[in-house]
Amino acid sequence: MESLMNSAEEQQPSSPPGNSWSKQEEINKNETPKCVGGFVLVHAGAGYHSESKAKEYKHVCKRACQRAVDRLKAGALAAEAVAAALVELEDSPFTNAGMGSNLNLSGEIECDASIMDGKSLHYGAVGAISGIKNPVLVANRLLSEAQKGKLSAGRIPPCFLVGRGAHDWAVGHGIPPCPSEKMATKFSLSAYKRNKRKMALAEKMDTGHNHAKKRRQSSETENGSGCLDTVGAVVVDSEGNVAAAVSSGGLAMKHPGRVGQAAHYGCGCWAENAFNNPYSTAVSTSGCGEHLIRTMLARECSAALQSEDAHKALLETMQNKFISSPFLAGEDRVLGGVIVLRCCRCVESSPSQNIQGILVEFLWSHTTESMCVGYMSAQDSKAKTHISRLPPGTVPGQCLAIEGGVCRLSVAE
Amino acid sequence: MESLMNSAEEQQPSSPPGNSWSKQEEINKNETPKCVGGFVLVHAGAGYHSESKAKEYKHVCKRACQRAVDRLKAGALAAEAVAAALVELEDSPFTNAGMGSNLNLSGEIECDASIMDGKSLHYGAVGAISGIKNPVLVANRLLSEAQKGKLSAGRIPPCFLVGRGAHDWAVGHGIPPCPSEKMATKFSLSAYKRNKRKMALAEKMDTGHNHAKKRRQSSETENGSGCLDTVGAVVVDSEGNVAAAVSSGGLAMKHPGRVGQAAHYGCGCWAENAFNNPYSTAVSTSGCGEHLIRTMLARECSAALQSEDAHKALLETMQNKFISSPFLAGEDRVLGGVIVLRCCRCVESSPSQNIQGILVEFLWSHTTESMCVGYMSAQDSKAKTHISRLPPGTVPGQCLAIEGGVCRLSVAE
Repeated sequence: MESLMNSAEEQQPSSPPGNSWSKQEEINKNETPKCVGGFVLVHAGAGYHSESKAKEYKHVCKRACQRAVDRLKAGALAAEAVAAALVELEDSPFTNAGMGSNLNLSGEIECDASIMDGKSLHYGAVGAISGIKNPVLVANRLLSEAQKGKLSAGRIPPCFLVGRGAHDWAVGHGIPPCPSEKMATKFSLSAYKRNKRKMALAEKMDTGHNHAKKRRQSSETENGSGCLDTVGAVVVDSEGNVAAAVSSGGLAMKHPGRVGQAAHYGCGCWAENAFNNPYSTAVSTSGCGEHLIRTMLARECSAALQSEDAHKALLETMQNKFISSPFLAGEDRVLGGVIVLRCCRCVESSPSQNIQGILVEFLWSHTTESMCVGYMSAQDSKAKTHISRLPPGTVPGQCLAIEGGVCRLSVAE
Repeated sequence: MESLMNSAEEQQPSSPPGNSWSKQEEINKNETPKCVGGFVLVHAGAGYHSESKAKEYKHVCKRACQRAVDRLKAGALAAEAVAAALVELEDSPFTNAGMGSNLNLSGEIECDASIMDGKSLHYGAVGAISGIKNPVLVANRLLSEAQKGKLSAGRIPPCFLVGRGAHDWAVGHGIPPCPSEKMATKFSLSAYKRNKRKMALAEKMDTGHNHAKKRRQSSETENGSGCLDTVGAVVVDSEGNVAAAVSSGGLAMKHPGRVGQAAHYGCGCWAENAFNNPYSTAVSTSGCGEHLIRTMLARECSAALQSEDAHKALLETMQNKFISSPFLAGEDRVLGGVIVLRCCRCVESSPSQNIQGILVEFLWSHTTESMCVGYMSAQDSKAKTHISRLPPGTVPGQCLAIEGGVCRLSVAE
């Protein structure tokens, strides 16, 4: 596997990877030759990852990659593998998803998650769901139920459920409930208390002043980029199908009922097999939900990735459709990150033979201080992990880092 | 006001309207000369409107137009006027929004609504909200709160709230609660009982058979296009700003917690002032929520409307991005409708002088049996209303109707 590790806003786009490989227009797409295993890229959030916890974040990314690859090797399709990776990421108490999620204003955990299958183009999502350990499994179940067709009396199955109704639907479909107190961790509880004190102080300072004016001022001083560690993954399976998923506990101290990008169609994740396009694409986002929603970043990245140079396309999208988006004109710092992959069938010409395969290009980019990622192909013995950081001296929310690599999946003999 | 009333799928696109008017590139956009009042287009749903109730549907559209025009004449901006129209549409017991909404599987009313302001590009939405008479007012309040900037301690205000949290936020912001039993009507209660019986019968028939197979069969026999009468409106104000809104009680017998297109960003409504584009656009959708979500129809229509011929652009979008969308490949009938407007500054050349103004093109299109619309400019004495129907012999969900008109708003002296 090659790795193109580059940072900084000014950086020149890398030359298109895999020059000795060419897209094989001639391969009959209906045959879908099986490649070895597939490939997964995961992230444990765009935000701030302290050096002291770096090891934990990398560990969970490694385990998530392994879980997805295990499923891929067992013949699972992309959607199943991506859900498996998400379960591992949600189960970590260090990530802001599932176990250890941020607490809301009322001290409760409400999670968002979604999954998209590039083959069927079906989508499932849950928003502000409580008392379920793995929200992604509810989203995945909504997706698979929708794929079965209509309900009794011609009713259309839902693709998005929220709140109490989502919880009851999950339990009714065999997903066990989990007491909310078991999902909170020492870390999330102490962060809640700290945030409560911070809010009380901020509101005390506002008293007696022009409230509207103060609101804007406080935003300038306290717009930290920490604690946005939503998780996600993108996968391509042995048939070349793609899938993407995302899961989040949402912003700390959010209002109960607030739904972030992780449950928003087109904003939290996107996956689309090639069909009439040159590339299959899968995207998962992380960061400030409202910024990712209003820019519909996942879908924008997916569309941009159909152009020739993936690196250039992602760089331009992050700059023009995110940092400088007219939809976020009033924001001083635009905080978020994405992982993307795109793939196409290809053939490697060598003197003796032509080897068919799938060329996978994968990238991550973020405007937050750091982003923790992991990736692995089924041909690898273990996952690679990395904490990407903004170049020194750059300002989070105004600059970006972009890195990535290339992987070739060969056709099984 | 001119009207281009045409139906049928095969119809030739109309010639570009307003030939004697040309877009005035020279007008300094910063000056934003004020036109007389503005223009509003509303709908009382794409679905099936019986002749017996046609009068009621037209009446409510007329009142909604009048309400918006009253606000526009009083100097309101587009977002405020569009919200005023929606309140009138929600208050009607005949529409599936606010009062008289469809009941869900548990016999409760849960509403979705959203609003988008083309000037600020801000957006507010509520999903599965109960006990609030006018959900659009909560969405509008979320939008205006978000425009004020950050909350205390640098917290980002939410743009989308659901369920109990949405209800509590609304009440906390001065929107009065309304007992759910007051929102149900004789009609919605009897429809609920009828649907319950229908479901029990369908499920009884399924017993002892292959469930998955039956599920698909029942969809073929009972895929009615009635009762999809979500409401919406699009507005342009005297400064040329656009806004759009949508509100819905959702599908009858939906699962509690199900959120439909009316609360989905990019799916229920879209509004975008011109900025760097040639046209300002506003769109509101109605119909089967899951179909409108997965095709992201509002945003697709808005993007398409930047091309030269609005009629052709909408026709092609409805055909290629909705009826024949790869995202709905498995659906036998794709049910929905849209209202759209686009506008640009223009100048009318006459022998004596050049008259500045805003050229407004407005259209509606639907694949459902019928769609009830109303429209009015501030220069009109009363609203025009119309129930558009598919041409005789065509199949709902596979064919479409498209109609529209043109309106010129002159600059006030």
